[in-house]
Amino acid sequence: MLSYPGFSFDILHHDPANRARVGRLSTPHGAIETPNYIFCGTKAALKALTPAQAREAGADIILSNTYHLLLQPGEDLVQRMGGLHKFMQWDGPMLTDSGGFQVFSLGHGSVADEIKGRNKSFDNTALLEISEQGAVFRSHIDGRKVHLSPERAMQIQRALGADLLMQFDECTPYHTTRDYTARSMEMSIRWGDRSLAEFARTHDGTQAVYGIVQGGVYEDLRRESAQYTADRSFFGTAIGGCLGGTDEEMHGVVAWSVPHIHPSRPVHFLGIGRMRDVFRFVRLGIDTFDCVIPTRLARHGNAFLQGAPGETINLKNARFRNDPEPLDPRNDIPASRDFSKAYIHHLFRSNEILGLQILAQHNVATLCRMMREIREAIKDGTLDELEQQWIA
Amino acid sequence: MLSYPGFSFDILHHDPANRARVGRLSTPHGAIETPNYIFCGTKAALKALTPAQAREAGADIILSNTYHLLLQPGEDLVQRMGGLHKFMQWDGPMLTDSGGFQVFSLGHGSVADEIKGRNKSFDNTALLEISEQGAVFRSHIDGRKVHLSPERAMQIQRALGADLLMQFDECTPYHTTRDYTARSMEMSIRWGDRSLAEFARTHDGTQAVYGIVQGGVYEDLRRESAQYTADRSFFGTAIGGCLGGTDEEMHGVVAWSVPHIHPSRPVHFLGIGRMRDVFRFVRLGIDTFDCVIPTRLARHGNAFLQGAPGETINLKNARFRNDPEPLDPRNDIPASRDFSKAYIHHLFRSNEILGLQILAQHNVATLCRMMREIREAIKDGTLDELEQQWIA
Repeated sequence: MLSYPGFSFDILHHDPANRARVGRLSTPHGAIETPNYIFCGTKAALKALTPAQAREAGADIILSNTYHLLLQPGEDLVQRMGGLHKFMQWDGPMLTDSGGFQVFSLGHGSVADEIKGRNKSFDNTALLEISEQGAVFRSHIDGRKVHLSPERAMQIQRALGADLLMQFDECTPYHTTRDYTARSMEMSIRWGDRSLAEFARTHDGTQAVYGIVQGGVYEDLRRESAQYTADRSFFGTAIGGCLGGTDEEMHGVVAWSVPHIHPSRPVHFLGIGRMRDVFRFVRLGIDTFDCVIPTRLARHGNAFLQGAPGETINLKNARFRNDPEPLDPRNDIPASRDFSKAYIHHLFRSNEILGLQILAQHNVATLCRMMREIREAIKDGTLDELEQQWIA
Repeated sequence: MLSYPGFSFDILHHDPANRARVGRLSTPHGAIETPNYIFCGTKAALKALTPAQAREAGADIILSNTYHLLLQPGEDLVQRMGGLHKFMQWDGPMLTDSGGFQVFSLGHGSVADEIKGRNKSFDNTALLEISEQGAVFRSHIDGRKVHLSPERAMQIQRALGADLLMQFDECTPYHTTRDYTARSMEMSIRWGDRSLAEFARTHDGTQAVYGIVQGGVYEDLRRESAQYTADRSFFGTAIGGCLGGTDEEMHGVVAWSVPHIHPSRPVHFLGIGRMRDVFRFVRLGIDTFDCVIPTRLARHGNAFLQGAPGETINLKNARFRNDPEPLDPRNDIPASRDFSKAYIHHLFRSNEILGLQILAQHNVATLCRMMREIREAIKDGTLDELEQQWIA
């Protein structure tokens, strides 16, 4: 059995009306309160935010992607530069994924993108082979063949040095059969054990690993996969893979999984993070979320806004040309409090990069404030009222 | 005679070995020490820097361009939004130009660009007419005809609300004849008087206007133009127009002009700001510089560096791939002190916007530190030694 002496997860409050909970997740780089939002620094950088600006916005924890860093600059270089925390100059808790999601998106591509709302951005890459051993793909950067396996994924994450790691898994898309999904889930279980064994081989107490619940849209497969993660000495549990094509299916997948996972471990929901998703899945017991949308939407002129229909407004819209009001002074940072919407509109009309910098920080700040208010509401038993204030 | 009760310029130290001086330029938005560098927020935004980041880097004063703001978002909108300071959220001293340089670049284009080291970025615009009345050009944004005259240029700058304004002038290129340059300089004198008259009509003490020395590469024309600016009640003097094709010609133009300008007014050098230019022209009595290169070079991966051959290094260069050292900890901001060159190299290789954000702030911080050290060196009589430390 692995133990994680430098890590802990304490559940401080339960919402009596549902599975929502407030927790404290401690790592060697500090502790965060949960529920919380993990912001994506895909290629070892938050899009258009310095670490200081992310901190100012209230971010507690970020992630980076194994797939991207493996290809550029390479995990060996990050390790020689002192690890990901030092490389990025982020001194707080950090998570890396295992690379599985991106690698299998190469093969299963468009459907996984559709389900997860991701852009297809791997057009020049190809998944060459999936076998029990692992996956072989072609780098979209330089065309070389790259092997990824449970062992390699853990070695890369070890070298990168984040606090929270993910087991290697196969991420199946929506259109696969039940049979393929079942066999894939069973392989992810064997890959989970290989991930744990490789992790244990070099375990030094500085990192902790999550198991991942797979099983597509099939209740029995999700239950089996969830029970597997609970039976092994993972530090945390992540819910991944195909979540279905609709909000209802996604809800079902999580509702089937959560009763069978380990009840006292932190639960991460991979790649999901619209405001309404956060409210919905906090109630099912999700502790942390991650999604690229806070910074991606910023690049397209969208600002998350409490109570806005569709959750966002688009600052490129002509109706903001004369709007002297700031985005939302409740965030209490200059990006949200001081600049007028008219100014941000002007910046996007003028292709000034400052526009997306302002929106990226505003979006992070908005989601951080929402998470803080969610934690308070769970303690106070007022989650329903809070959701009505946030979700139109 | 105009007076500027809200403004002052006090010369605190003279370098006995040359015309260099340390001064204090006070405006209704605060005072700056000179020599100083005015950073370009062309379209009401510094490229990739928030006002807070510019302040953190040490910037004291910024400028914005009348030509660009006239076209988008329009000076009326900026005025309705409370003026340029509030619009941009910059609470320090600010300068606007008169639009002349850009408008006449449309007609004289490539040569002016070449002389001033600017990119030609007005391909879709056209200068339709120059007359005694002013200039007519076609907007590169929406194709409409736009008139600009001394009166209009001052009205626009009045509406924008910067502290320091520029008279309207014609900016002649290198390839024009002496005869054209002489007639143009005389027209700029008449335009200077019309600018002053329009400025005086609505003078309320919140703004101050600079006269501009024109006259191309001709000593007698420069002298005549300089004497004109000294004879009129401008608050400050700017040196503009064609400065020649070589460093030596540029030096000559300034050396001819400076003895004839008003000795106790602040002197601005329009559009010039390489490190070696700053050292050279501080010695001739220039108090403020502006140039787009700190942020433009950052976008192309270049970092200003004390003592670097050619003044900059390019972080895209493969030799920085493994470089664990920061850019320059003497700047004492995270951008210069904390991130490794290897990390910034990675950001540019990965097309991460954060790379140019870091370099933009580093470049501003480097030039601000250089200006601070120049002010100290003038007081100490050690400008030559300082130049040797900065210029390779």
